[in-house]
Amino acid sequence: MATTTGAKKWVFLFPEGNAQMRDTLGGKGAGLSEMTNAGLPVPPGFTITTDACRAFYTEGRQFPPGMWQQVLDAMQVVEKETGKKFGDPANPLLVSVRSGAKFSMPGMMDTVLNLGLNAETLHGLIKLTGNDRFAYDAYRRFIQMFGKIVLDIEGSKFEKIFDSYKERVGAKYDTDLTADDLKKIEVEYKELVRRETGREFPEDPYEQLRLSIQAVFASWMNKRAMDYRNFHKIPHDLGTAVNIVTMVFGNMGTDSGTGVAFTRDPATGEDKLYGEYLVNAQGEDVVAGIRTPQKIATMGNEMPGLYKELEQIAEKLERHYRDAQDMEFTIERGKLYMLQTRSAKRTAQAAVKIAVDMVRQGLISKEEALQRVEPNQIYQLLLPRFDPAAKTRAEKEGRLVAKGLNASPGAAMGKAIFDADKAEELGNAGQAVILTRPETNPDDVHGMLVARGILTARGGATSHAAVVARGLGKPCVAGCEALKVDMERRQFTVDGVTVREGDEISIDGSTGEVFVGAIPTIEPNLAEEKDLSQLLEWANEVKRLGVWANADYPRDAQNAVNFGAEGIGLCRTEHMFFEEDRLPVVRQMILAASEATILEEQLARVQEEYDKASPDSRAAIDKRLAEARGKVEGSESVRRYREALNTLEQTQKSDFKGIFKVMAGRPVVIRLLDPPLHEFLPSYEELLVETTELRMQGKTKELAEKEPLLRAVATMREANPMLGLRGCRLGIMFPAIYEMQVRAILTAAGELEAEGVPVHPEIMIPLVGHINELNIVRDSTQKAAAAVTEKLGRTVSYKFGTMIEIPRAALTADQIAETAEFFSFGTNDLTQTVFGFSRDDAEGKFLLQYVERGILPENPFQVLDRGGVGKLLRMGVEAGRKTRPDLKVGICGEHGGEPSSVEFCHQAGLNYVSCSPFRVPIARLAAAQAALAQVERDR
Amino acid sequence: MATTTGAKKWVFLFPEGNAQMRDTLGGKGAGLSEMTNAGLPVPPGFTITTDACRAFYTEGRQFPPGMWQQVLDAMQVVEKETGKKFGDPANPLLVSVRSGAKFSMPGMMDTVLNLGLNAETLHGLIKLTGNDRFAYDAYRRFIQMFGKIVLDIEGSKFEKIFDSYKERVGAKYDTDLTADDLKKIEVEYKELVRRETGREFPEDPYEQLRLSIQAVFASWMNKRAMDYRNFHKIPHDLGTAVNIVTMVFGNMGTDSGTGVAFTRDPATGEDKLYGEYLVNAQGEDVVAGIRTPQKIATMGNEMPGLYKELEQIAEKLERHYRDAQDMEFTIERGKLYMLQTRSAKRTAQAAVKIAVDMVRQGLISKEEALQRVEPNQIYQLLLPRFDPAAKTRAEKEGRLVAKGLNASPGAAMGKAIFDADKAEELGNAGQAVILTRPETNPDDVHGMLVARGILTARGGATSHAAVVARGLGKPCVAGCEALKVDMERRQFTVDGVTVREGDEISIDGSTGEVFVGAIPTIEPNLAEEKDLSQLLEWANEVKRLGVWANADYPRDAQNAVNFGAEGIGLCRTEHMFFEEDRLPVVRQMILAASEATILEEQLARVQEEYDKASPDSRAAIDKRLAEARGKVEGSESVRRYREALNTLEQTQKSDFKGIFKVMAGRPVVIRLLDPPLHEFLPSYEELLVETTELRMQGKTKELAEKEPLLRAVATMREANPMLGLRGCRLGIMFPAIYEMQVRAILTAAGELEAEGVPVHPEIMIPLVGHINELNIVRDSTQKAAAAVTEKLGRTVSYKFGTMIEIPRAALTADQIAETAEFFSFGTNDLTQTVFGFSRDDAEGKFLLQYVERGILPENPFQVLDRGGVGKLLRMGVEAGRKTRPDLKVGICGEHGGEPSSVEFCHQAGLNYVSCSPFRVPIARLAAAQAALAQVERDR
Repeated sequence: MATTTGAKKWVFLFPEGNAQMRDTLGGKGAGLSEMTNAGLPVPPGFTITTDACRAFYTEGRQFPPGMWQQVLDAMQVVEKETGKKFGDPANPLLVSVRSGAKFSMPGMMDTVLNLGLNAETLHGLIKLTGNDRFAYDAYRRFIQMFGKIVLDIEGSKFEKIFDSYKERVGAKYDTDLTADDLKKIEVEYKELVRRETGREFPEDPYEQLRLSIQAVFASWMNKRAMDYRNFHKIPHDLGTAVNIVTMVFGNMGTDSGTGVAFTRDPATGEDKLYGEYLVNAQGEDVVAGIRTPQKIATMGNEMPGLYKELEQIAEKLERHYRDAQDMEFTIERGKLYMLQTRSAKRTAQAAVKIAVDMVRQGLISKEEALQRVEPNQIYQLLLPRFDPAAKTRAEKEGRLVAKGLNASPGAAMGKAIFDADKAEELGNAGQAVILTRPETNPDDVHGMLVARGILTARGGATSHAAVVARGLGKPCVAGCEALKVDMERRQFTVDGVTVREGDEISIDGSTGEVFVGAIPTIEPNLAEEKDLSQLLEWANEVKRLGVWANADYPRDAQNAVNFGAEGIGLCRTEHMFFEEDRLPVVRQMILAASEATILEEQLARVQEEYDKASPDSRAAIDKRLAEARGKVEGSESVRRYREALNTLEQTQKSDFKGIFKVMAGRPVVIRLLDPPLHEFLPSYEELLVETTELRMQGKTKELAEKEPLLRAVATMREANPMLGLRGCRLGIMFPAIYEMQVRAILTAAGELEAEGVPVHPEIMIPLVGHINELNIVRDSTQKAAAAVTEKLGRTVSYKFGTMIEIPRAALTADQIAETAEFFSFGTNDLTQTVFGFSRDDAEGKFLLQYVERGILPENPFQVLDRGGVGKLLRMGVEAGRKTRPDLKVGICGEHGGEPSSVEFCHQAGLNYVSCSPFRVPIARLAAAQAALAQVERDR
Repeated sequence: MATTTGAKKWVFLFPEGNAQMRDTLGGKGAGLSEMTNAGLPVPPGFTITTDACRAFYTEGRQFPPGMWQQVLDAMQVVEKETGKKFGDPANPLLVSVRSGAKFSMPGMMDTVLNLGLNAETLHGLIKLTGNDRFAYDAYRRFIQMFGKIVLDIEGSKFEKIFDSYKERVGAKYDTDLTADDLKKIEVEYKELVRRETGREFPEDPYEQLRLSIQAVFASWMNKRAMDYRNFHKIPHDLGTAVNIVTMVFGNMGTDSGTGVAFTRDPATGEDKLYGEYLVNAQGEDVVAGIRTPQKIATMGNEMPGLYKELEQIAEKLERHYRDAQDMEFTIERGKLYMLQTRSAKRTAQAAVKIAVDMVRQGLISKEEALQRVEPNQIYQLLLPRFDPAAKTRAEKEGRLVAKGLNASPGAAMGKAIFDADKAEELGNAGQAVILTRPETNPDDVHGMLVARGILTARGGATSHAAVVARGLGKPCVAGCEALKVDMERRQFTVDGVTVREGDEISIDGSTGEVFVGAIPTIEPNLAEEKDLSQLLEWANEVKRLGVWANADYPRDAQNAVNFGAEGIGLCRTEHMFFEEDRLPVVRQMILAASEATILEEQLARVQEEYDKASPDSRAAIDKRLAEARGKVEGSESVRRYREALNTLEQTQKSDFKGIFKVMAGRPVVIRLLDPPLHEFLPSYEELLVETTELRMQGKTKELAEKEPLLRAVATMREANPMLGLRGCRLGIMFPAIYEMQVRAILTAAGELEAEGVPVHPEIMIPLVGHINELNIVRDSTQKAAAAVTEKLGRTVSYKFGTMIEIPRAALTADQIAETAEFFSFGTNDLTQTVFGFSRDDAEGKFLLQYVERGILPENPFQVLDRGGVGKLLRMGVEAGRKTRPDLKVGICGEHGGEPSSVEFCHQAGLNYVSCSPFRVPIARLAAAQAALAQVERDR
């Protein structure tokens, strides 16, 4: 369509667009255009572009120049095609006005249907359809929708009129209302509009159209749309397109209907038509989940011809788009219309199965399959499941009380909570919550975000609850109609059981089962996920990055191997220290460390002096040497220190043996002790209160016992422990601790090697900021290694490297690589120091607000900050490799399992990422996608 | 001298060397060579190089190949020149063996005199001199010195023999002893040597020589030498040269003597010969301060010819070296010998005066003068002086008890402490200490390092105490013979007063006065320091860097201007908050801030929604708007918050007015509130103890009053406050506080401008890490500025900039410079984040040890770390200027007043440094030196 004014083209008729124009036409508009051009039955219509929406905002909420004229011109074309006329009492054209952004935001923005109805066209509609009840109902719906969305009148006010009328006339269902009833409701509705807005309901269809387009534009910036975009990281400046589509009615009788269908099952990925439809209903009845629709298979029996047509269209669309589609259709008096198609949202399981199946079916390549699955989605497949034994027990105990729709997979247990606000509050406080609602709507999203799972009594697999839950990767059981939810009493009853708010329930979104009481969950098993395993094997074929795991115990290491980890990138020895039976020994070590170290260093200094002195002058030193030795040998601190170190050496040795065995020769990077020692001691504040109490009670004996500990803890307290005496600083101030750890590592390795078990230990030094620190620890490591060699009678080979987690280390990486054989970027601490954020404080006190307000695009502790941390990381890699071209570089912060960060690590030329075991599959896929993106770029 | 073996040349005869060969020959050797070649009377001798010393260490404490042969060859040349023979009983050559490193380390290493004496040569010496007492005394001294230094026998053991012999024979002075006495002492000494070493005292002169050279080499690595080098930042790998010099004797009668002379007064810089000499004495008698020598002027009367010769030599040396010299000389039977010359150590005052005088005398250029003064030395001139009134009072009260030598200027008060260990202990604990000793020796240096001042009863202006104190810039009164020091009782009596250890005393090193009790000190006045003012004017002519000051109050600003500051680079507004009368208001603000901000933001959000809404839909928002407004207006928190903010705005306004007035149009950079708010609240731990006590006492009413404060403080506590809610994060979370500050600044400026006072305010935002943070604060600053404009009816111009103190800010400086008109590097925090050091924790827990152990070359909080922090700073400057070529960049950490850091700032292209007012002169000189060094490099 040529523009009439020479102005910018704001409006595209469906035949003028195509699937590539998502940026301009939005997803829905592009899909309608594409379908129109593919010859599918789409009602005539046109799209107002996202450019127009953006212009609307920059022009102070005014239509941009020329747009309205283009809308009028397009309406004439539609009138011509349909043979109807907008506002014509004789043969009225009715249209829907629908939002449609580039990225699907289900239910987040507004739609107005049946637009073009007024007192006059209503009668035309009655005449044309011969169905006055239908026409009055359409008009009633239009006023309600327009009143709510365009005129900003609270929806509940319309509902109240409607419900109280129903009550007055004793109607149980909406369908019990007659045309006359609906006519009376219409009068009350219009009265409501007059009262609320001070004006008459607009009768002019073009005014209706103008106001509706404005309202859709405005809905882009409503709170729930903004919340949704914030959560899904969709930019706020994209704008929405507006689609004006000729109305077709699914509620014109039993030969009419409306539905939503997926070309493949979006929950399981099974390759067959999936979806729901409702006979004699309009589209919003399905989407809103108010009536529970029928499965689409039923349509095969009830309307076999149309079902066949739908199947053919589905196949055509899949071939056309080379992806599973989510279609909206309406049947008006036996004729099928396609109202929308878009790439189908799907569960992780479905995404994986569809991608793998499509490769097998020759529809897409392996590389495409790898790009079809969001790495983060995989996480859902690795969500906990019910412990089968516990579940069987629960079933035997009769605790399986209902079964709903398996709307989003995964098992969850938590307290049943009946409103989103309370769910948010408890969820933020760290409690497990199952948001339990009659149905959900967009206002509930904030509660869904923090809930462990969602349970609704009404709504189908495409209801709001189901769609949002799948998007969030949360378990959801929807449409569980057996639940009688009593919102006033905040409880539901089912199967004779009453669950009050706060009671524990368990749901399985993969099966739809609902249990009362808690059922423990277990970890999933990758080997059983055949499709996922296949996809990840393909990922291994294309990825360049190694994927390692962070694991502190043999069981973690086993998990990591099961998930495909190629090594352990971070084994935190301090986690072993925190175990209950070891903590007393660790505390003994810490409390004796200072005094013992001072005495031992004094002795070492005199000894050194003695060794260096000429034989003549040694006599003079003899006495001091004997004195210093006497002090060491007579010291209770030294005795306790050595005793504790010996005990810990033994336990650490067996820890390491367990891990080495599991890893069977794969590299294991062990980080020496990192946290400040006071972390292992009781809290200063608690001791302060305790001693104050003892003092006030005059319990002098107990006080005298407690006070030395208080003093010791007080001495070790730090103003900013994150930047204090920890990491290699500890290893330098208390060399015996690191030497003990090195001996434990190398003895474990050596003893296993002697048994023929391959081992590959790598010793990693934390918190290095200056090459001299690393060199000192290297020297004491070599000393300890030599002791092990002597004791075992065999040399254990190991690599020696460092964390890069302090900006200075990255800035001086060229020097540090002189000594370090490998780098591992500790991006958690690096993020803290590069931003000057203490994570403990920042997230609670301002960081989440920063993200919410868009001050930071992401939480940098989740997604690696490329502009700052990433820049420094790249500098460090480059400088390190300049010194040592074969320097092995990895990352072991939480970012190692986050797809965008993994992509960055690939781009920065890292050798591997290391993440928590459950994130290994995510990282493998992300690494493959990064490699594929690289190929694209290099092309 | 050609080497006989073709080996490396390890030995240089004096005529073979010159002044440029300090690296190889050490300072003393190079000086002796230079003097020899200048025709001055130097006893024949040679120098063993520092290379030989280094080789000695690398070869496992062995002489390097060929060295010993070269020594023997050189001895032959000396024998030829002197006509004497080493070990010849008839005409024995005696030599001294003296250390001599590149940098002077007075008294730190060892010297052996009279070498070549044994039973046989002793008799030759008697025959030659006809003075058996002299000869026996020389032999006795040699055995004692050799025994102590070469054979490592405790010196006190020799002294004990000597003193008890004196007692036995009733000798009061050493000179009371006869040749026979000395002969008997010799026997006892040799018996001691036999006992201690199990061997006879070595008789072979060449063995004596070999062992002595070894001992001097070894003394390079003795503890006090290493301590000295650590303190003075002299590298440990330079090594020392060894000088073998023909002995000349100042103790051959009253026509002999020895002395030390300076070409100008090293304390005041006055241009006349200064020094001391002792008739009939050997050099160590002067240096060790055992006998109190006579002023050199006396020599003009006693030996007028020799004095004249010395004056001529002094002038010649000054012209030759173009600097003031420190000369050692000996007169042997009426003949003057020069034993050493070196650049004279001098006080800051002398350094400045000498440099300025030499320019006036046409000896050196202004540029050279600027390079002659160590910037850090200037600090001494700006040391506190006694408050004249308090001093007068003290004098009237009879507290002026003695007067010694004014050995090193500056006034100090502190506890009299009698040994170095205790002084070190108390000094490190932050106590003011005056180290009070009969005399000091190199073993006392560790105590001198921490003392506020040094007081000795014996020794002259060139005694150990005096020389070291001047080097350290500490006040010193030396040779205060009126003091009767009783080391056993740890007290001294003087003028009838007994001062016990720990009693307070006050000394003035500029006048030599000693007071009992404390006398408060006051700040110096630059205007009165004419020479320094002159030098600093020259500095201003050549420096490129601006020198600004950190000042928080008008009085600081006035100081800054007096010291030549060109602006204020950092005005910390929080310091104003801490004042006693304001703290309650600040606390009121803080405790109300959270709730008030939430309510106000809620209202703002509804208001915004309302403002954006179409007129149609405003009605619906009206009610919520009224509600939100009602909440704000009814809130006690809001009321208290606003009240406190208003009060603070008024007080801050008058603070700023005071500063602007003083600065009279010079730039004033005001940093908005930076520290975490909880710093202004009572301590959590104290409140915890208090409430526990109240609880235990059952004081429920008091408890109920206290608990809300405890809870508030608990909520605001942070794990790592350094990295928490502070800086611009505060300004973003509590915008009203920053807006209040901006209004106070701009109102103050505007009101002054209206009065015709020029002002130049610059608003600086702390702790920015992301450009979005800065932009948000910029917006609210503009809003506040607009309010001021409206209120005052005039626009106040200001600059808007940011601290760069977070690594991410430096890394993204290109983006930040889009908004910031200036950068100020906060190198204190930048050092903390780049190193990952919390200064509060690090310095106490490991950092000082790091510096001591050489893990870090310097404390990076004192001297800017070029490798890490500096690298990042350079990146930030470069990136910032790329975006904004005229970006003004400064530094406002403590480094701004540290010479090496100032040099770096010059090199990095900064516009200015800002430091504490008293450091402004240092920074000016350092900036000039940096500019001159630049000119050198560019040449």
